[in-house]
Amino acid sequence: MEKWFFELQEPGVKLGIEYEDKLLEVQTKYQKLEIYKTKRLGNLMVLDGCVMTTDEDEFFYHEMISHPSLYTHPNPEKVLIIGGGDGGTLREVLKHPVVKEAHLCEIDGEVIEAAKKYFPNLSISFKDPRTSIFVEDGFAFLDRQKEYYDVILVDSTDPVGEAAKLYEESFFKKIYNSLKSDGIFTIQAENYFYELSVMKSLYNNVKSIFNKAYFYFSPVITYPSGNWSFLMGTKKYHPIKDSDFNKYQIKTKYYNRNIHYASFALPEIVKGIVK
Amino acid sequence: MEKWFFELQEPGVKLGIEYEDKLLEVQTKYQKLEIYKTKRLGNLMVLDGCVMTTDEDEFFYHEMISHPSLYTHPNPEKVLIIGGGDGGTLREVLKHPVVKEAHLCEIDGEVIEAAKKYFPNLSISFKDPRTSIFVEDGFAFLDRQKEYYDVILVDSTDPVGEAAKLYEESFFKKIYNSLKSDGIFTIQAENYFYELSVMKSLYNNVKSIFNKAYFYFSPVITYPSGNWSFLMGTKKYHPIKDSDFNKYQIKTKYYNRNIHYASFALPEIVKGIVK
Repeated sequence: MEKWFFELQEPGVKLGIEYEDKLLEVQTKYQKLEIYKTKRLGNLMVLDGCVMTTDEDEFFYHEMISHPSLYTHPNPEKVLIIGGGDGGTLREVLKHPVVKEAHLCEIDGEVIEAAKKYFPNLSISFKDPRTSIFVEDGFAFLDRQKEYYDVILVDSTDPVGEAAKLYEESFFKKIYNSLKSDGIFTIQAENYFYELSVMKSLYNNVKSIFNKAYFYFSPVITYPSGNWSFLMGTKKYHPIKDSDFNKYQIKTKYYNRNIHYASFALPEIVKGIVK
Repeated sequence: MEKWFFELQEPGVKLGIEYEDKLLEVQTKYQKLEIYKTKRLGNLMVLDGCVMTTDEDEFFYHEMISHPSLYTHPNPEKVLIIGGGDGGTLREVLKHPVVKEAHLCEIDGEVIEAAKKYFPNLSISFKDPRTSIFVEDGFAFLDRQKEYYDVILVDSTDPVGEAAKLYEESFFKKIYNSLKSDGIFTIQAENYFYELSVMKSLYNNVKSIFNKAYFYFSPVITYPSGNWSFLMGTKKYHPIKDSDFNKYQIKTKYYNRNIHYASFALPEIVKGIVK
């Protein structure tokens, strides 16, 4: 008897993932959290019915939300991750030897605990001495951190429910204020096949606070459309002209220098929203 | 009562597409052909249970199998498409004003007829005066065309059943012989998330016949992993150094000059198979 998890990725389109066991199903204070042991993709984390990550394809998302910013900033010593409770983004950030402090601010402590138990490969960096974990709301946290960070990565769920406010101008203003004068921030930014209008409003919101905003793109196999967008806002640096790959090498499965440059190429249909 | 078409994209992973009507189901001489009217993705063509194309996402595949070769070759006057019975690749090829002859060699005439009826947007170029259609086996067809084509595009189904021989060295030798001395060929080449070993053997087969072989990549939303690979074999030209975007412009939804360059960036996990 086959067991399948299905996500309705878009009205009329579903992704199905076969599983052997449901390892966890719990309603946290903020969301419904499920963990499955799948047949093909390792363990799967689901929040409010949406695929967050799987062991097999997580590297695309976690490498791509992290490394473009960290290779663009010349010396990213202090990094903040908002969200990212599974630990995958933290793991990638800490591959950079120049990082001295990595702060992770996740609102839902139960996601962190589930990651420790069911995703050892993602949560491996929670114990790194450079890591500090804050289980609280990102909005309040940012208010206490003025001009502190070199890089801020917003690794949140999609802009509905609790996470909706993480896509508003007032949030980007707080991000801006928590970054140093040459800081960089990146936020996960939906997909352009189904959600181009969401991306457009996100772009306008970021652009109104930061001088410079740049979309870039990556496959993420289990996300709607199989492809994902990221939006980088920078106070000073340019992701192509200022990125520097000579200072050190890191080990990855998807990202590298050429992929960095390539990821910023705008598909023709995206050009219309960044004018 | 919802009706869903499901493709088992990989053991343990399914794509589901909701449909309003099944417009056609027929066993042709070569394969099972189904057409659905879907809720979100326009009409859908399925061959032997595998998604071939949908109205909504077909542009990724058809633009990307065509334009990289046609912008790399300085003067692609004579183009052959093997397979491609839906007409989408032909439509893209004929956007290039320099093309004088576009030959389409499709083994299954029923696919062509279904495309005319159910995919008017794809099959629009069947009537172009530059088009010639040959309903026959590509192997036999190539034997009659010595050093004739500037570009050959292999737009076939996956390497199983009737199409398996289109991925063998003997076929690439025929392609080579049917191309002029500066010819270029491109073949659809699976995805690197689930089928890296298939890609490796394909690469080795093409490389053994052509001096130069280059993978490039594109999203294709409804294909397994949501991302697809193409492999270009060239006798003379280099897809980055020799491509020329100044000669004329074409109208596209995904492809453009920057996407052309970007598509050739190799993901880290693909580098291992092209050494």
